[in-house]
Amino acid sequence: MKTTLTKAFGTEAAHLPVKGMDINRRTVLDNDVEIEILYCGICHSDLHVLRDDWGITVFPVVPGHENIGKVTKAGSKVNKFKIGDLAAIGCIVDSCGVCSHCNHGEEQYCESGWTLVFNAPDKHIGGVTYGGFSQKIVCDAEYVLKMPEFKDLAAAAPLLCAGITVYSPLKHWKVGPGKKVGIVGIGGLGHMAVKIAKALGAHVTVFTTSKDKMDDAKHLGADEAVLSKDSEQMKNQSGFDMVLDTVSAKHDVNAYLNVLKVDGSLVLVGLPSEPLEIGAFSIVSGRKSFSGSSIGGIAETQEMLEFCYDHNITADIELVKSSGINEALARLEKGDVKYRFVIDMKS
Amino acid sequence: MKTTLTKAFGTEAAHLPVKGMDINRRTVLDNDVEIEILYCGICHSDLHVLRDDWGITVFPVVPGHENIGKVTKAGSKVNKFKIGDLAAIGCIVDSCGVCSHCNHGEEQYCESGWTLVFNAPDKHIGGVTYGGFSQKIVCDAEYVLKMPEFKDLAAAAPLLCAGITVYSPLKHWKVGPGKKVGIVGIGGLGHMAVKIAKALGAHVTVFTTSKDKMDDAKHLGADEAVLSKDSEQMKNQSGFDMVLDTVSAKHDVNAYLNVLKVDGSLVLVGLPSEPLEIGAFSIVSGRKSFSGSSIGGIAETQEMLEFCYDHNITADIELVKSSGINEALARLEKGDVKYRFVIDMKS
Repeated sequence: MKTTLTKAFGTEAAHLPVKGMDINRRTVLDNDVEIEILYCGICHSDLHVLRDDWGITVFPVVPGHENIGKVTKAGSKVNKFKIGDLAAIGCIVDSCGVCSHCNHGEEQYCESGWTLVFNAPDKHIGGVTYGGFSQKIVCDAEYVLKMPEFKDLAAAAPLLCAGITVYSPLKHWKVGPGKKVGIVGIGGLGHMAVKIAKALGAHVTVFTTSKDKMDDAKHLGADEAVLSKDSEQMKNQSGFDMVLDTVSAKHDVNAYLNVLKVDGSLVLVGLPSEPLEIGAFSIVSGRKSFSGSSIGGIAETQEMLEFCYDHNITADIELVKSSGINEALARLEKGDVKYRFVIDMKS
Repeated sequence: MKTTLTKAFGTEAAHLPVKGMDINRRTVLDNDVEIEILYCGICHSDLHVLRDDWGITVFPVVPGHENIGKVTKAGSKVNKFKIGDLAAIGCIVDSCGVCSHCNHGEEQYCESGWTLVFNAPDKHIGGVTYGGFSQKIVCDAEYVLKMPEFKDLAAAAPLLCAGITVYSPLKHWKVGPGKKVGIVGIGGLGHMAVKIAKALGAHVTVFTTSKDKMDDAKHLGADEAVLSKDSEQMKNQSGFDMVLDTVSAKHDVNAYLNVLKVDGSLVLVGLPSEPLEIGAFSIVSGRKSFSGSSIGGIAETQEMLEFCYDHNITADIELVKSSGINEALARLEKGDVKYRFVIDMKS
């Protein structure tokens, strides 16, 4: 298959910094669009893969799964987009398309396994897929989102991963008016969860280990903020329908199971590398659940983008130039970001 | 309040054997019935409390929460029973009666906390409640079950705890025709779960660590039996809607989360004293849940008794005399019982 070169930013080994490199993109097929990337968010998963924290990285690796851009080419069979349209690509760039989950718009649970936008086997040109830390990307239009005209387009980039990762479980567990929801952790995911849960009409309480972030939680729209390491404050919490846990480090989840009402759910969207310990009484005594949720399908991501556009929701970001990626990654590693770095790819 | 003495079997300290003792029962109030106990099952929880394994035992303690007997007295306001009726008492002998859970027949999740048949504060005569290791018991008729005329009444006693503890989650998670269900562990609870899940119409697979119990599982009605310590056998398992975990010791629950389909639930009814470890990917990758369930309410227990009567379901038991309680407890401690001891209280 014919390919064309495009500029990208990636690493050649776990210990090396990100640097400019040329990568191959397939030439546009009948169902494909080519997108010039304008903005790309930096998610903690990008950092994990760059550092090979999960032992699954194929080098060289080009991360980036919160991509917004403009359509520059469209294949002959593409009706969804025309040249110049705003478009976005999140985590998923391919799936089987025929299993019951794909048929129900839940490609993230595809029975044959979906294709991640980076570091996954590339079925078209071999090797692995390369993400959005690049000038251009080519993708089947079915997996490309139509991007509403957000006033601050850069701040909308994190919706493609952080946004959908919290929107999907909030919808699945029927968060809305009259529901009492907790959000654990105020980072890239957590701060989006507060905004979206409020827009859905729920009563929102933030649980944070950081005193500084208690005020931030209120500014983000939370009704209440609780310092989770203060056992007195925790003792007063109860009656939650759902608690969404966005923390990616080992932590005591029983504390959050305890604040749930009967039949309540604690839903994990973070990916701590160490297992989490559950006491039997924490779930048995109130028929409670400790559940997980993974990103969201294409249709739901489109729905989420429109929901956020209608409710004026974007991420709180720091926009960085492509020359500042390594510094941003170093700060992200220390948790020093409120709340998401986004790369200005035209810089 | 006036009380009367009744013979019972209990212990005066964690290290002492069970012995005969006299205990007080309240005289029958307007809404009470007095029941002469015919059969009482021995559950592992009885042993835990006798040995003070959970550090909550008030001595002297008289266990027994799987009680079947005959009504010998009925208060002036009792219409549900007449003298001579078969009746049964399980775990719950009181609850607030006014909270939303009590109103929905789920007294096991009563907001004010329900009263356990033994070792719980006795609101009427002080001290703690005494269970069914005794000749007579007095209870508010609302918490007493009408007992169908099972051919083998002794074998029906374990329905009152083991039976309802598995029936309630099987119903709550909508187990029935077309559903693929796993049962982990073949003991008092597990063997009941196999029978009930089959009667509900599900495809039932037993997971056991014991090669001997694989045949037993088939005899109990399981469609399949899997040796859980055989990784080859485990690798071939998938697509379960629900797995019911009856194991009360520390074990790897991720193995059972892995066999669930998307949105599947692993439901714990055992009470291991050590926490269980959950890997984030075990729940996140298929939106799976690790849930718990605790016994069942009075109305559901009545429904379960009738379901079991209609489907000819009782426990597999060893009937022991009251003089054999200590030997039975010693064997139970070693797991040497198929699958429940029941005391013949008239012996």
